[in-house]
Amino acid sequence: MDTKNIGLRNIPVADTRVSNIDGERGKLIYRGYDILDLTKNSNFEETCYLLLHDELPSKSEFEQFKNELIAARPIVKQMQINMGNWRKDADPMDMLQAFVAALAGYYDEEFSNKEASYERATNLIAKIPTIVASWQRIRNGRDIVDPDSSLSHAANFLYMLSGEKPDPETEKIFDICLILHADHTFNASTFAARQVASTRAHMFSAVSAAVGALSGELHGGANYEVMRMLLDIKTEDNVESWIKQKMDNEERIMGMGHAVYKTYDPRAMVLKELSKKLAEKIGEPWFDITQKVEEVTINEMKKRKGVDIYPNVDLYSASVYYMLKIPTDLNTPIFAISRVAGWTAHIIEEKFAEAAPKPALYRPKAIYVGKYCGPQGCEYKPLDIRPETNQKASF
Amino acid sequence: MDTKNIGLRNIPVADTRVSNIDGERGKLIYRGYDILDLTKNSNFEETCYLLLHDELPSKSEFEQFKNELIAARPIVKQMQINMGNWRKDADPMDMLQAFVAALAGYYDEEFSNKEASYERATNLIAKIPTIVASWQRIRNGRDIVDPDSSLSHAANFLYMLSGEKPDPETEKIFDICLILHADHTFNASTFAARQVASTRAHMFSAVSAAVGALSGELHGGANYEVMRMLLDIKTEDNVESWIKQKMDNEERIMGMGHAVYKTYDPRAMVLKELSKKLAEKIGEPWFDITQKVEEVTINEMKKRKGVDIYPNVDLYSASVYYMLKIPTDLNTPIFAISRVAGWTAHIIEEKFAEAAPKPALYRPKAIYVGKYCGPQGCEYKPLDIRPETNQKASF
Repeated sequence: MDTKNIGLRNIPVADTRVSNIDGERGKLIYRGYDILDLTKNSNFEETCYLLLHDELPSKSEFEQFKNELIAARPIVKQMQINMGNWRKDADPMDMLQAFVAALAGYYDEEFSNKEASYERATNLIAKIPTIVASWQRIRNGRDIVDPDSSLSHAANFLYMLSGEKPDPETEKIFDICLILHADHTFNASTFAARQVASTRAHMFSAVSAAVGALSGELHGGANYEVMRMLLDIKTEDNVESWIKQKMDNEERIMGMGHAVYKTYDPRAMVLKELSKKLAEKIGEPWFDITQKVEEVTINEMKKRKGVDIYPNVDLYSASVYYMLKIPTDLNTPIFAISRVAGWTAHIIEEKFAEAAPKPALYRPKAIYVGKYCGPQGCEYKPLDIRPETNQKASF
Repeated sequence: MDTKNIGLRNIPVADTRVSNIDGERGKLIYRGYDILDLTKNSNFEETCYLLLHDELPSKSEFEQFKNELIAARPIVKQMQINMGNWRKDADPMDMLQAFVAALAGYYDEEFSNKEASYERATNLIAKIPTIVASWQRIRNGRDIVDPDSSLSHAANFLYMLSGEKPDPETEKIFDICLILHADHTFNASTFAARQVASTRAHMFSAVSAAVGALSGELHGGANYEVMRMLLDIKTEDNVESWIKQKMDNEERIMGMGHAVYKTYDPRAMVLKELSKKLAEKIGEPWFDITQKVEEVTINEMKKRKGVDIYPNVDLYSASVYYMLKIPTDLNTPIFAISRVAGWTAHIIEEKFAEAAPKPALYRPKAIYVGKYCGPQGCEYKPLDIRPETNQKASF
């Protein structure tokens, strides 16, 4: 087929009011608001409200929404018992994909009810952190820490994970991370969610699929790969030879480059500052190593291929999470804890779009390039008279 | 946005060798072979081999593949125990989506290993029937029936479901149903599977997402809706008024019409014969009612809108499954039991395509139509000075 549609890059598939990327200017906008403004002035709960409802909440709307989120945090006891029965070395993303799908068993069918969809969205945003933290405790043979309703969304997750309430600075850093990852237009997992929803499947089904898409190393799995790279590099002195060797082998440098941004990813800018601040605070080398990876990759790409490349959201989030003492293989589940806000907003938009053109079930065209023996098909030879040798030659 | 891309209809996204639809002639081709030829001469196991390996097997290849499938049928005991802990009224498709994702916990990472992907495909084809049948037994408080290695794929599933070995005619009918549903190019669930796989997520993750997409009533959920329609209509005499009333309300008649076929869906043709045969054998009215639904819908659509409409695969499969004594809400899981052959073949193609243009992570373009306050974004007003009234007016 024509290469122009590969990966659907630049192929418009639907209208959206949820977010906008200005790739030239390096801007990410949620429902009209610049994320840099939101990270400075807002918090994750308010950002969720904004993404779901297309408006910032009034004071009373915000109070109500926060309380709904807090009330929805616990997961049923039976789910925790079932987690305990699981293989302890199961990947946290696989667990999350399974248990999000399983959540559906606790809700009635939503059909075409928009109100029910908002309720499910609130439940998913509230419960995904609990699922991730419960599994982290269970797989390490530790008691589950129940959610604390006096804590913010960000602080509560860190508390359920470690059993210790974070200091305000740590809470703020993690809250900013959650805001930054909450939406990004039609990225692969969000598009997967919209696609599953386009069949009129329910929200748990669509979000579970999105978790699956996020787990891939080209998508949400990338910040995990970045941390593996940093741990492999070990010291700032090793960076240059490490990067050059990878490039000699035509391997990709994780955390660098983005399909949409033609300049610095605004999220990377914020995360770079956070990483620097954390590294200074606790005296670890991960910021310096990461910055050197950025520098060497930019220079080498310019020299070798004559192209400009910039860090993406994953490059500095890896060291931030590491210095927040979050286990490396929870980097991608944490991405899900934030992105579920965008997923659910997009699912509601996909299902209940009021303006034309309305979305429809996604069923793209395939270009058949396989065996062809005329319109009647190839002749089926019964097994008994089929030759033992490989038959590829006959076509 | 321009309406031409809605639902990606007619937008080519990738090359495929797996299957081809000739919408004008009403032909469905798997890897070069007409499905009508396969339903007459082949069986589901051989069709799976064909879909996965691009060739019909030789005798020894076929024996080996059949044995691998049989050996892979059992699921671990712990998984059955966990099922027993689930809410008994959970939807079977939700269970399936969850347990397919959970299966990943029992396998090591596959990375970019094509051989490992084939092994996972065999396991998924073999184990999905076991998951579906186990849940059917468990939710009804009955003992699980272990797979019987002397039985074919089709017969074994019916046996695990009911505890009774089916007669050869029933086995053959069900086998044909499995062949017919095994692949259908880039339908919504297959495209969802390819999309998740495009992020390099593993096969369980991609198949779990596909199960989610299949559950929607516009996709695999349709044959469940057809049976609900038939049960609601009850007798042949009611058909005409029932259909006319739905059409008066601009409601969709499930099981009729298809995005790709411009003539009779070849699968519907085969299923119509099977439905007729079964109805005659057991003396039930479901074939006659279905045929009348077809006739009235065709006439009314011609009269009201001047368009030709034909039955799709779901119209007659509903009554076939019903007369095979399969519980109505297992219609869609049975679709998955068959379609997993196509999903896994497409996932392998997506991940390991050798010819250019190679597939890439799907990340389509979104057209932003939301709030816009210039490139800097809208002004964030702190909660304290935000008005209590709905702010929509300010944009």
